[in-house]
Amino acid sequence: MQIDEQEFFKKTHIEITSEDGAKIMGKPIGKYITIESQSLKENNPQAHKQIIQEVANIIKSLLPKVDEKLKVLAIGLGNRQATPDTLGPYVTDKVFVTRHLMEFVPAEIEKNVANLSSLAPGVMGLTGIETSEIVKGTAEHIKPHCIIAIDSLGARSASRINTTIQITNTGISPGAGIGNKRKQLDESTVGCPVIAIGVPTVVDAATLVNDTMDYLIESMLSETQDATFYQMLKDLGDQEKYSLIKKTITPTIGNLFVTPKDIDEVIMYLGNVISNAINIAVHPSITIDDINKYAY
Amino acid sequence: MQIDEQEFFKKTHIEITSEDGAKIMGKPIGKYITIESQSLKENNPQAHKQIIQEVANIIKSLLPKVDEKLKVLAIGLGNRQATPDTLGPYVTDKVFVTRHLMEFVPAEIEKNVANLSSLAPGVMGLTGIETSEIVKGTAEHIKPHCIIAIDSLGARSASRINTTIQITNTGISPGAGIGNKRKQLDESTVGCPVIAIGVPTVVDAATLVNDTMDYLIESMLSETQDATFYQMLKDLGDQEKYSLIKKTITPTIGNLFVTPKDIDEVIMYLGNVISNAINIAVHPSITIDDINKYAY
Amino acid sequence: MQIDEQEFFKKTHIEITSEDGAKIMGKPIGKYITIESQSLKENNPQAHKQIIQEVANIIKSLLPKVDEKLKVLAIGLGNRQATPDTLGPYVTDKVFVTRHLMEFVPAEIEKNVANLSSLAPGVMGLTGIETSEIVKGTAEHIKPHCIIAIDSLGARSASRINTTIQITNTGISPGAGIGNKRKQLDESTVGCPVIAIGVPTVVDAATLVNDTMDYLIESMLSETQDATFYQMLKDLGDQEKYSLIKKTITPTIGNLFVTPKDIDEVIMYLGNVISNAINIAVHPSITIDDINKYAY
Amino acid sequence: MQIDEQEFFKKTHIEITSEDGAKIMGKPIGKYITIESQSLKENNPQAHKQIIQEVANIIKSLLPKVDEKLKVLAIGLGNRQATPDTLGPYVTDKVFVTRHLMEFVPAEIEKNVANLSSLAPGVMGLTGIETSEIVKGTAEHIKPHCIIAIDSLGARSASRINTTIQITNTGISPGAGIGNKRKQLDESTVGCPVIAIGVPTVVDAATLVNDTMDYLIESMLSETQDATFYQMLKDLGDQEKYSLIKKTITPTIGNLFVTPKDIDEVIMYLGNVISNAINIAVHPSITIDDINKYAY
Repeated sequence: MQIDEQEFFKKTHIEITSEDGAKIMGKPIGKYITIESQSLKENNPQAHKQIIQEVANIIKSLLPKVDEKLKVLAIGLGNRQATPDTLGPYVTDKVFVTRHLMEFVPAEIEKNVANLSSLAPGVMGLTGIETSEIVKGTAEHIKPHCIIAIDSLGARSASRINTTIQITNTGISPGAGIGNKRKQLDESTVGCPVIAIGVPTVVDAATLVNDTMDYLIESMLSETQDATFYQMLKDLGDQEKYSLIKKTITPTIGNLFVTPKDIDEVIMYLGNVISNAINIAVHPSITIDDINKYAY
Repeated sequence: MQIDEQEFFKKTHIEITSEDGAKIMGKPIGKYITIESQSLKENNPQAHKQIIQEVANIIKSLLPKVDEKLKVLAIGLGNRQATPDTLGPYVTDKVFVTRHLMEFVPAEIEKNVANLSSLAPGVMGLTGIETSEIVKGTAEHIKPHCIIAIDSLGARSASRINTTIQITNTGISPGAGIGNKRKQLDESTVGCPVIAIGVPTVVDAATLVNDTMDYLIESMLSETQDATFYQMLKDLGDQEKYSLIKKTITPTIGNLFVTPKDIDEVIMYLGNVISNAINIAVHPSITIDDINKYAY
Repeated sequence: MQIDEQEFFKKTHIEITSEDGAKIMGKPIGKYITIESQSLKENNPQAHKQIIQEVANIIKSLLPKVDEKLKVLAIGLGNRQATPDTLGPYVTDKVFVTRHLMEFVPAEIEKNVANLSSLAPGVMGLTGIETSEIVKGTAEHIKPHCIIAIDSLGARSASRINTTIQITNTGISPGAGIGNKRKQLDESTVGCPVIAIGVPTVVDAATLVNDTMDYLIESMLSETQDATFYQMLKDLGDQEKYSLIKKTITPTIGNLFVTPKDIDEVIMYLGNVISNAINIAVHPSITIDDINKYAY
Repeated sequence: MQIDEQEFFKKTHIEITSEDGAKIMGKPIGKYITIESQSLKENNPQAHKQIIQEVANIIKSLLPKVDEKLKVLAIGLGNRQATPDTLGPYVTDKVFVTRHLMEFVPAEIEKNVANLSSLAPGVMGLTGIETSEIVKGTAEHIKPHCIIAIDSLGARSASRINTTIQITNTGISPGAGIGNKRKQLDESTVGCPVIAIGVPTVVDAATLVNDTMDYLIESMLSETQDATFYQMLKDLGDQEKYSLIKKTITPTIGNLFVTPKDIDEVIMYLGNVISNAINIAVHPSITIDDINKYAY
């Protein structure tokens, strides 16, 4: 694991290189890069600029090297009608798509841009269709070298909400954030490598309760000798404890999610960071000086 | 307290009639009517129709009796940019306003409608202005017999979210739901009686944790003899316990709120119920058969 | 041509049955049904109910007869970010999709509904992808018996805006309304029959000018003997005259469209009429009494 | 009249100083400054920056000089539900309001900002209230030194749509753009000076037809000797001709407006330009280097 601390962000880079490593980590072989920054949820253009450049570099390092013009399909996962879930469609609406212009532009201009297209396939609850079916069907016609999939995620802890960008070259499960986990989007299901860019924008209620109880009990116990209840909870093991809380919470408030009050605004910050980073990573002639020029 | 159980809802009616009663209840003298219905958060037109009629009756019973044409100002409290907080503005956009038509319509038609106007004053965080200042300033020009204020509230327990309509003739504190509590809107601050219609649409994270821990501990302790931690918590008293959780939760996740995934849709159901009820209560010639005719 | 006048609408039914007929009409062999009603753009639930039933009957008559469970894919064409172009996505968001539930529901319920899925593929300007590629790619996985495509159209005359529903079994060109005409969606391009439902929601500026000049000149000339300018224009022929106006208008105001002020509200009326009609036509157990129950 | 041509805009400055001048111009005594720029409707951050600085300078020159802390109320006119009419509310949502913070901030910070508040009063069709009543009522409580009112306007010619910012210190008529002209907001109706910032975002259909016919006839007549129809039209005089077209157009298409296809995006450009300009003009310590920092 490499850690890189910069002025406005912290980058963590993990690479799983063997089947054994994959088993230990419980994740497929591949690269896992995380950018952490409190500035992501604030109106901080200077910090965002630094992060855009870094995310662009990371995406570029994960894109396949090809001899012809690079063909990329950006997939914006999520539900346009639930604010914390709109990050994916926001990004695909903003990236600078060029695929449809290829035949019309002069050769001089054409060489400055990649062949980029985008699609926001919606969510299964509203379409009745597995996202992977729409993506695979479309990819069979476009034949991209690579898919970049952007999605809102569920946070594993409340403190990570809107402060973390997770990038991997191993694919993604649509709807892992809010809604049920769906069929994986990866090379085996859609036919080309899938770079996934995810941002935790919500936390489920049970996780929130779990985390808070942990903090609370820990701090209370430091002041007492007797710890029967805590010991009891601790003996359960993490997974069992979570399940217990989940089971307790579900009948009353099953369908709730936890998200910041200013989520509309924060989605805009995050969406601008990611769409600018994709434009810079994918198109040869777009640079950090063009921020918001192609992705207002 | 009167309780009335109907097919699709339960109505609770409390009236505080004396200063002593007000002290005991911790609320001003006045009427407090609550409609509870799980159907409010579902697409159930039949149930909604029954509830619209009941809410219309309740509003009508609280409106002042006047000898001239009734003049009502509907105030939609809340922030248009945070979905769970849009109920108020949604309703004021939908009610059938007539004040500006009074001078133009023939006398025959004019007698069929009250003089209704509406305003969504925004929230102090975006305007810099106390809501009561805007409402009072406007009311001084309109001179309504009565204000009907509609607002999203914070729930005291997660199970009440989107299932409860609270109506009172004692006024309301804007922003009591999400955001800070603001100056009360009531007869003393705005110069005319204020009927408040509130619906809990969010719960704060600390309340959620508190409720869940209560359930959880209660159910775990039934299986054990030893209860030191629970006893410890119990000894704190409710208010102290909540404060402790709040204090624990705030540094990490202070700004979060908890709301259902389908809140956009539910706001529409609630908004249609309330705007139709206001139209029926206020305008003499609009009845339950006109649902959605003046408030699509 | 059959014409059927009802209380709230007028229905016109044209069928082209031969290649000769197709040549004369300049349209492919097939059925062309038009519903005209001023009520479509008004808040008139009674009229809408009558029209929903009629549109449902028309769709039902065009659906293929199959021996197994009917499988339908609804395609919502248009750009979610330009109000007059949102009708298609509005409808696909509202229809009662069931395809993803098929394996989970009991046999008793399952027989009451068709297999319906939906997709809003976006517009080429934002995706870089021909709509027909996305639709064909998805249809290859879903293998529907029939596609129902909904789109906003450009009106041939301003008076038709939002007052006409055009239904045909011969397919549709996405973006024929606002934006450039794209590759046809029909059996030859997507692999199954395509029922198209279109509503003119805009008129291009040149058409508006053209129509108005015609009215104006006609009315002015009735009062004069001398008609040189009119004669001059008339001699041009309709197509030439339109081109001339278009050429005159484009440099200054090329990118304009003409639409009613209350278009947001009217899209909602139209969208509710069409989504309810699709639900009734497609699902065996949904009837006119279920209006808005499955398509709020 | 002073004209100033810069790289990205043209500024026109007219001052009416006497009652005679006012009679001749048909406008009240005051200053009228217009910024024209095609870049306003394009994604051109460099041009926007130049224009923001200029608009800020203009506003600053029109603000009253006061000895105490400057108190300004920004009023966003227009209907949030009709895209071309959302400019005003967009701006008031974005300006950096401070009035409610005054008592809480340390003196050091407090001296860096003016006392700014904002309000989007809605339109009379949805509120039933004259905008001037709401504004006056609120201003009586806030007692601002000056109101800045922002509104979408109707263009006098299609070519001016979204390319012109009109600034004056003589007030404004809400709804002059799309909708009926309402009571003037000026010192006489609201009790303090009113700086108005207007941008034409729509043109009415009759103006469009009128302009096009003028172009068309002019260009056709250059090729002919005989001009009876044109002469006939010309003899009418401009006002009569417009009325004739209006009369011809109204029965069919009365309620239409003409606006660009990308109006959602253009409103964002315009709104960001104006809200940044207001922040710079009003708050002593905000400068052109803070673009989007207080008005993302």
